[in-house]
Amino acid sequence: MKNIKSIGIDFGGTSIKFGVVSGKEIIATSPRIYPKDYPVPSDLIRAIAERVNQLKTEHNNVVAIGCGVPGFVDFPTGTIHNLTNVPGWTNIHLKEELEARTDLPTAVENDANAMAIAEWKLGAAKGYAHAVCLTLGTGVGGGIISNNAVIRGAQFTAGELGQTSIDYAGRMGAYNNPGALEAYLGNNEFAADTQSDYVAAGIDKELSDCTPELLAEAAENGCEIALKAWDGYAEKLSTTLATTCWLLNPEIIVIGGGVSNAGDLLFMPLKKYLHAQLSGPFKDHLKVVPAEFSNNAGILGTAALALEGIEDFNV
Amino acid sequence: MKNIKSIGIDFGGTSIKFGVVSGKEIIATSPRIYPKDYPVPSDLIRAIAERVNQLKTEHNNVVAIGCGVPGFVDFPTGTIHNLTNVPGWTNIHLKEELEARTDLPTAVENDANAMAIAEWKLGAAKGYAHAVCLTLGTGVGGGIISNNAVIRGAQFTAGELGQTSIDYAGRMGAYNNPGALEAYLGNNEFAADTQSDYVAAGIDKELSDCTPELLAEAAENGCEIALKAWDGYAEKLSTTLATTCWLLNPEIIVIGGGVSNAGDLLFMPLKKYLHAQLSGPFKDHLKVVPAEFSNNAGILGTAALALEGIEDFNV
Repeated sequence: MKNIKSIGIDFGGTSIKFGVVSGKEIIATSPRIYPKDYPVPSDLIRAIAERVNQLKTEHNNVVAIGCGVPGFVDFPTGTIHNLTNVPGWTNIHLKEELEARTDLPTAVENDANAMAIAEWKLGAAKGYAHAVCLTLGTGVGGGIISNNAVIRGAQFTAGELGQTSIDYAGRMGAYNNPGALEAYLGNNEFAADTQSDYVAAGIDKELSDCTPELLAEAAENGCEIALKAWDGYAEKLSTTLATTCWLLNPEIIVIGGGVSNAGDLLFMPLKKYLHAQLSGPFKDHLKVVPAEFSNNAGILGTAALALEGIEDFNV
Repeated sequence: MKNIKSIGIDFGGTSIKFGVVSGKEIIATSPRIYPKDYPVPSDLIRAIAERVNQLKTEHNNVVAIGCGVPGFVDFPTGTIHNLTNVPGWTNIHLKEELEARTDLPTAVENDANAMAIAEWKLGAAKGYAHAVCLTLGTGVGGGIISNNAVIRGAQFTAGELGQTSIDYAGRMGAYNNPGALEAYLGNNEFAADTQSDYVAAGIDKELSDCTPELLAEAAENGCEIALKAWDGYAEKLSTTLATTCWLLNPEIIVIGGGVSNAGDLLFMPLKKYLHAQLSGPFKDHLKVVPAEFSNNAGILGTAALALEGIEDFNV
């Protein structure tokens, strides 16, 4: 089929975005939906299906739907076990429900995997058989590609880079997991730690002065404490990434999310730390690059995922 | 082909063992070869090929060779980049050389992967699509199965569980990698740490009293320091295994190597620590079991690997 299109749905905790995708272009969007306006899941599903059906009538050759959600999904059945920030979304058969209401094959995936799929199928990791993608923001999420396939694992919970441990006797993560990377590098934790550094140096700083954006600005203006904060961020991140390299030997690491906008402040020390602790045979081949897509990764990744089965079996 | 057989070669730093394998049975072996007797690699290769050709004449239906080596191998070409404890073995085309001398298709693999393949194809992880296998001894080695395939990675160096970090500011590993698991759990390091604990408690102990065997005996006799040592061993090991679970979501973890003989002294606290720091959806499904094979894993795994291509394409 020529000019095949799919619909990508980026189901976030606060808003749900829709895009009609052709190749790597979002050729149309429709107005967002806000989960808080639909406290009953079945009402929200109906609203999502309406948007999809509208887009389907407006665009020809739409053959599939992909939906990325902030939570834990049973991938083959598309059943959502639960969503982190959307009350009531427990044990919801989203794939089945959307397929019944739209007559389009639907794939439902974890949002971090969707981002990884966007980068792997269309973006910075395109053409690589072994890739690790992560997003750095409020939380730390990730997705892993190995042997040209998404690594989902036995219960489809693989790729949780934010929960990996960087210190067996360290700070507790969300699952009572000592040394969880996210417990150091989540935006709030990074801000609080850096504020403490300022206070310890006798400098008065609000927590709101310690966002990644403002700390990047401060570092660029030569602030030693901010520079040290970015170095520490990179050191901790390098630990999880080095561990991931020892386990999986990827060719490329793709880093997205708001924090990646810090650019060289993050990437330079990160590469230095990674290079120092990896072995010759693979460290020289390893690429560490910024993500190609930012806010559109969710729509693009789910739209690409939607076409997987279609392209394999029907075209 | 019925009753198909392959030859597994377990190429260790001190000796090389040979077995003719049918299914999971080693039906014949031949005398070991000692690398120190053949300082020139081509002489050692010739000796290996002679053993293989002898076994081939003694047994019918031998269709392939597998060889596991202690070092870094380019898997598709079977070229050994270097071996850890065998001088002169740098850039050796072992697959090509053995194929030319024996006329049998040959697979050359890292020894830890070979052990993992033995457990996955024939042993404790048989039938599992997502498995992590590790060996605990002088070093800590591992192999990873995901989506029913060995994860080798871009330069075939994946599965190095012993090099993963459990502390970003920790003890240096062999590659200048902070917090390397092996730097805590290698037999020598475990002995030295436990000896220090004895000394700190005013108890005189030789390093040679702190082998895993003797520490297991001491713990079974109620020695508090030995019990604490095993608990600490399990805590550190659980950190790498939990990280591996967050990244890969395996169904089963198989633990072999000499240290695994400690049995419940290791497995009980290990399961306790793992269970405490993993998330509900998958921790309840995770199995942690001892390896089925010990000294034979190398021969069985390489023999099984040898048949992979054969069974897929020719039978």
